[in-house]
Amino acid sequence: MRDYVEIGVGREARRTYSLSDISIVPSRRTRSSSDVDTTWHIDAYTFGIPVMSHPTDSLASPEFVIEMDKQGGLGVINAEGLWGRQADLEAAVARVVAAVTSDDNIDGAGAQAIALLQELHAAPIDEDLLTDRIAEVRASGATVAVRVSPQRARELAPLVISAGAEILVIQGTMISAEHVATGGEPLNLKEFIGSLEVPVIAGGVADYTTAMHLMRTGAAGIIVGGGTNTNDYALGIEVPMATAIADVSAARREYLDETGGRYVHIIADGEIATSGDVAKAIACGADAVMLGTTLAPAAEAAAGGSFWPAVAGHPRFPRGLVEPPEGFYFEGVETPSLEKILHGPSTQAFGNQNIVGGLRRAMAKCGYTDLKSFQKVGLAVKR
Amino acid sequence: MRDYVEIGVGREARRTYSLSDISIVPSRRTRSSSDVDTTWHIDAYTFGIPVMSHPTDSLASPEFVIEMDKQGGLGVINAEGLWGRQADLEAAVARVVAAVTSDDNIDGAGAQAIALLQELHAAPIDEDLLTDRIAEVRASGATVAVRVSPQRARELAPLVISAGAEILVIQGTMISAEHVATGGEPLNLKEFIGSLEVPVIAGGVADYTTAMHLMRTGAAGIIVGGGTNTNDYALGIEVPMATAIADVSAARREYLDETGGRYVHIIADGEIATSGDVAKAIACGADAVMLGTTLAPAAEAAAGGSFWPAVAGHPRFPRGLVEPPEGFYFEGVETPSLEKILHGPSTQAFGNQNIVGGLRRAMAKCGYTDLKSFQKVGLAVKR
Amino acid sequence: MRDYVEIGVGREARRTYSLSDISIVPSRRTRSSSDVDTTWHIDAYTFGIPVMSHPTDSLASPEFVIEMDKQGGLGVINAEGLWGRQADLEAAVARVVAAVTSDDNIDGAGAQAIALLQELHAAPIDEDLLTDRIAEVRASGATVAVRVSPQRARELAPLVISAGAEILVIQGTMISAEHVATGGEPLNLKEFIGSLEVPVIAGGVADYTTAMHLMRTGAAGIIVGGGTNTNDYALGIEVPMATAIADVSAARREYLDETGGRYVHIIADGEIATSGDVAKAIACGADAVMLGTTLAPAAEAAAGGSFWPAVAGHPRFPRGLVEPPEGFYFEGVETPSLEKILHGPSTQAFGNQNIVGGLRRAMAKCGYTDLKSFQKVGLAVKR
Amino acid sequence: MRDYVEIGVGREARRTYSLSDISIVPSRRTRSSSDVDTTWHIDAYTFGIPVMSHPTDSLASPEFVIEMDKQGGLGVINAEGLWGRQADLEAAVARVVAAVTSDDNIDGAGAQAIALLQELHAAPIDEDLLTDRIAEVRASGATVAVRVSPQRARELAPLVISAGAEILVIQGTMISAEHVATGGEPLNLKEFIGSLEVPVIAGGVADYTTAMHLMRTGAAGIIVGGGTNTNDYALGIEVPMATAIADVSAARREYLDETGGRYVHIIADGEIATSGDVAKAIACGADAVMLGTTLAPAAEAAAGGSFWPAVAGHPRFPRGLVEPPEGFYFEGVETPSLEKILHGPSTQAFGNQNIVGGLRRAMAKCGYTDLKSFQKVGLAVKR
Repeated sequence: MRDYVEIGVGREARRTYSLSDISIVPSRRTRSSSDVDTTWHIDAYTFGIPVMSHPTDSLASPEFVIEMDKQGGLGVINAEGLWGRQADLEAAVARVVAAVTSDDNIDGAGAQAIALLQELHAAPIDEDLLTDRIAEVRASGATVAVRVSPQRARELAPLVISAGAEILVIQGTMISAEHVATGGEPLNLKEFIGSLEVPVIAGGVADYTTAMHLMRTGAAGIIVGGGTNTNDYALGIEVPMATAIADVSAARREYLDETGGRYVHIIADGEIATSGDVAKAIACGADAVMLGTTLAPAAEAAAGGSFWPAVAGHPRFPRGLVEPPEGFYFEGVETPSLEKILHGPSTQAFGNQNIVGGLRRAMAKCGYTDLKSFQKVGLAVKR
Repeated sequence: MRDYVEIGVGREARRTYSLSDISIVPSRRTRSSSDVDTTWHIDAYTFGIPVMSHPTDSLASPEFVIEMDKQGGLGVINAEGLWGRQADLEAAVARVVAAVTSDDNIDGAGAQAIALLQELHAAPIDEDLLTDRIAEVRASGATVAVRVSPQRARELAPLVISAGAEILVIQGTMISAEHVATGGEPLNLKEFIGSLEVPVIAGGVADYTTAMHLMRTGAAGIIVGGGTNTNDYALGIEVPMATAIADVSAARREYLDETGGRYVHIIADGEIATSGDVAKAIACGADAVMLGTTLAPAAEAAAGGSFWPAVAGHPRFPRGLVEPPEGFYFEGVETPSLEKILHGPSTQAFGNQNIVGGLRRAMAKCGYTDLKSFQKVGLAVKR
Repeated sequence: MRDYVEIGVGREARRTYSLSDISIVPSRRTRSSSDVDTTWHIDAYTFGIPVMSHPTDSLASPEFVIEMDKQGGLGVINAEGLWGRQADLEAAVARVVAAVTSDDNIDGAGAQAIALLQELHAAPIDEDLLTDRIAEVRASGATVAVRVSPQRARELAPLVISAGAEILVIQGTMISAEHVATGGEPLNLKEFIGSLEVPVIAGGVADYTTAMHLMRTGAAGIIVGGGTNTNDYALGIEVPMATAIADVSAARREYLDETGGRYVHIIADGEIATSGDVAKAIACGADAVMLGTTLAPAAEAAAGGSFWPAVAGHPRFPRGLVEPPEGFYFEGVETPSLEKILHGPSTQAFGNQNIVGGLRRAMAKCGYTDLKSFQKVGLAVKR
Repeated sequence: MRDYVEIGVGREARRTYSLSDISIVPSRRTRSSSDVDTTWHIDAYTFGIPVMSHPTDSLASPEFVIEMDKQGGLGVINAEGLWGRQADLEAAVARVVAAVTSDDNIDGAGAQAIALLQELHAAPIDEDLLTDRIAEVRASGATVAVRVSPQRARELAPLVISAGAEILVIQGTMISAEHVATGGEPLNLKEFIGSLEVPVIAGGVADYTTAMHLMRTGAAGIIVGGGTNTNDYALGIEVPMATAIADVSAARREYLDETGGRYVHIIADGEIATSGDVAKAIACGADAVMLGTTLAPAAEAAAGGSFWPAVAGHPRFPRGLVEPPEGFYFEGVETPSLEKILHGPSTQAFGNQNIVGGLRRAMAKCGYTDLKSFQKVGLAVKR
């Protein structure tokens, strides 16, 4: 059934699809969008909306994470970002913003900002600083999720959990259930996750097999996607999200059967900028989405509209654009609240405000009232 | 026969086509374009040209609707737009135009104009004002069509019909024959349309099933398409028009057979900007088209070249660009009459003037002399 | 064998290809380009290179037509253009150039230039003026080809032939062997061509059937393509040239069999800008090409780098851009001779100079030494 | 198994794919990138990284070739470029750079620079000058590769080999094992290569058959690709690299079987700009890549960021852009060292620095630790 093409004599490649390649097809009786339920239950937690934030210092100020909680979503803190490395977090973020909005960034590539991010990330993690900051957010009553990399998970997870992290996110560009390294001790995710007392969301993955292995580690959720838009240039690896989400959904069905009913959540992290993209991701099989640039314009976001993914500060091989705020190019652009971005009312026509309202309307126009059943809506491929 | 692809393991999507993906293939003896008949008969009405205007206040001034009638087409008034909400209609439209042509709209996104549209639409509908204005146009002798939303059809239809509406347009972004809402009374279109004494044109729809249900409500015409170009961003729902028109045409054939001969008209509202697009829409099976931006440059249009679709004033989730006139970007652009846009002579090479002349020529070059038979012309897909 | 897709329920469209969709695949021993023969024999005429000029006043000054002959190609005069309508031809062309290069043409759409072309073409054809001018070129010894439209062929053909036209080009956007018009007398091309004493090249056509009918009229050559790049916008009719040329080549094979050996030449007029495009057109089955914009920069061209197709002066429905010379956008652009454009040496990397040298090299790298056999070279479709 | 489409009646074309059409699919356990081995063994030579430089004077200063060696790669000198024609090589290159960065080059087409390259290449090759310069680089201890064209191979190869060339590159845009020319003596590559005492890398080729013939000549390596990005415009010949590399890999498998084990290396020269492209080329079956524009920004490169391929100086039919350095468009762009471009650390997010680090990471994320096995990694086609 898979659709393969022969790109050269004896060499096949599978045909894959991005979210922008597909669209949702309404074909049932329309419903009222006020009847739509967007609740997302994962493990013991319930969120009003199926939205996590990408774990980047350009979004996650303490204020931002607390506001995400208020708006029904889940803010994610990057344990390996600047929170634990820079005593004056605001000043550090402000320096990056200054670099990316300086006149020198005329080509928009943000090389100076990347160099500065590398410099700021070269500082060691101050464990007290990190735990204090996490604990401070936790003290507000907000649900706290913290991201660690697979490489440092063993070292940092106990720390961030004891500081108050209720959900642990183990996230790298592409991870697998068992990472192999000569001479080092590989992280066996199954053993590691089994040893933790909090639910784990792990990823990113892009294919059926890796997802299946990751589900077997006991993770509560799987992140699909590479989390940044420059992997194709940098690695030759791209994750066409429609295909990737659908494949991992198929792995989930298989795993549900294998386990007699353990349901692993799928969180889509890639190609998602607008409410239409959110609807498409769920239509392909995702339970929730991880938003990045979409949330950056929020007044509560740390970098005032600038955005960079976690991997942009990589010491030797940074990926992902450091983007200036829209106001860098156009004067007089508004600064919406996170509430406006998530719940509206919108004054934009392109689905980048009132994300959840857009999702509700998409579901209602297709005649669906809950996220799970919407995963079966009809799809079309353009051309 | 349908062309499906597997976008991921076990998840299929149908391959669909836009008007820009296709082209018309001449393969018969050429005819003289003066032998082409573009008459469009729907219910008891006959129009010289198969053209309706999109129901937006950016087009429909009283002058515009009267001129549409003179030129052989059908102007449509939006009962839920500014006609019934703003005593000084011209001033209200002028404020929107001022917002979209101000220097602040440097990014062209028109956020201020959308906010202003929302504010202007927040005023309640003054029923007397609305009926007076409709009656005034009717008094000119022009055929008057008025658009209501499915939500307010029950309330407003009697009003606008008694004011003189000869054709009722029930139009939302995506509608179905029976809208379901918890706790409210759904609009059963079949019963409702049966209770009216004027013909109804209803839509938009995008698929075979919904169209079939809508035909069974007794509607005289079905609108195919979402009426705006930002639904893909906002809802993830896009209506590739070549496929949608062809699908609804197939539903019509089935319905013709089912009813032993009731012919429901198909009006295409989407992706249509030039005379070539009009020809393609009819070639796919449409009987008529609804034009929006194409008519905006007309001297008689309300907003002097600016355009916005009806849904751009939505209180919480606006869709569709508010577009400044071409003169906002280029000085010295002419202001053609509606007659020139529809019937020429054109001084433009891209088919955005003399729309009907272009349609005539396309038909003549393919050897067809009436709209109905032109629906069978050969088609090609590019690549 | 044809590749059809179902664009909607029960509605098929054929998949078609443009020259830009394909590329030539070398797979034989390479040859020396000096061994390549580009001679083109049609009827009693032999040309050193398989190149005609598009019949437009923006190219065809007397000087240009004479130089085309010198360089081995065939210049074409438009009998219904300005040669017979404007006593001061140079001044008339200069006015169009002034309009298209004025600051008012800031959007590049050339509306003023089109309006001026319409005005200049509104003047009646002065038969003496036209015949004098054609005779003047003929007197130079150059082979003269003159284009008439199907509508005026009966009236103008005797005139231009007696004035010295050795090859008659009957060319409209899309023509058929028998044009049908109520109340008028249709032009039966078969009878008409049979009555002439010069060879006829007729077109444009886009499909197998029309081409077959046109071959049966006795035409020596068939023009494939619509001759302008805005037909898709204006008419919804586009001629993807790779498919069209291949289809007409197939009709030629059939007609060769039917007639026991009458070979009709195929001249491609569309999508051809560079030497690579010329090579592709021939690879698809063309015997020669008609060049337009490619020749416009020549010092000998009438409009000094500006270009418009013949149909740009249509009184009611003009098509085809009126293009300013490259120097309108960039200062200091050179003015190459026609010889340099056709035979080099080139100082451009994109195949828009030394067109024939590029064709020779393409053929040589694929191991072919004559045009006819190169029609069988391997082809690839991109993606 | 080949994927053919019928582009017109009776005319088929093969569907082909570019590197940008495909992506790499990780589906195994991830590895540490420090475990990845990028060693490339060809004939008796071992290189730390699978990278050659394109044989152009815009890259190959003596300093550049020596630094390429230090960084583990192989710099290539063009025997028919300016090294042997211009006594003051630096001044000659500087003149070209001045032409391409002058205000006159406002359209970026570089016509003046091409004309100057043609003038500089019109000077005869001074054999002493050329051999002295090659010998000087050789004296540094660096491995020296020198490129000659098939046309002048017989004449120049003995010269450059005696001067110190350890690897001979016989490279033209498209070559074949036996070039046919009337009246001249064809170069029989098999005999010629057999007569040499150094390994030969020959190309470019684009198809299975030509590659097979070239392998049979005894070449140690085959270059796949046309080496420049304007062949499609100029010749109509394009080499979609994913298909071409895969086809030539298939020819290699066949040739391995035919010879009972002679392994011919495949070097990809085309469409490769970023580390992701390098990974894709190897994933398609290449053993190494030839980099051009990617290396141009290096401080050690001859032309200070400007780039032109070898064929840009062709006397009658130049191909390939002469590109100004990025700093021509944007001020303040850094000048990285060749080491930074090849080995990082990078401060760019698009894979144009730390090329080898990117390749390592791509391989590691897919679970591969050597280049040969990575040729089997899973591939996807986008859409």
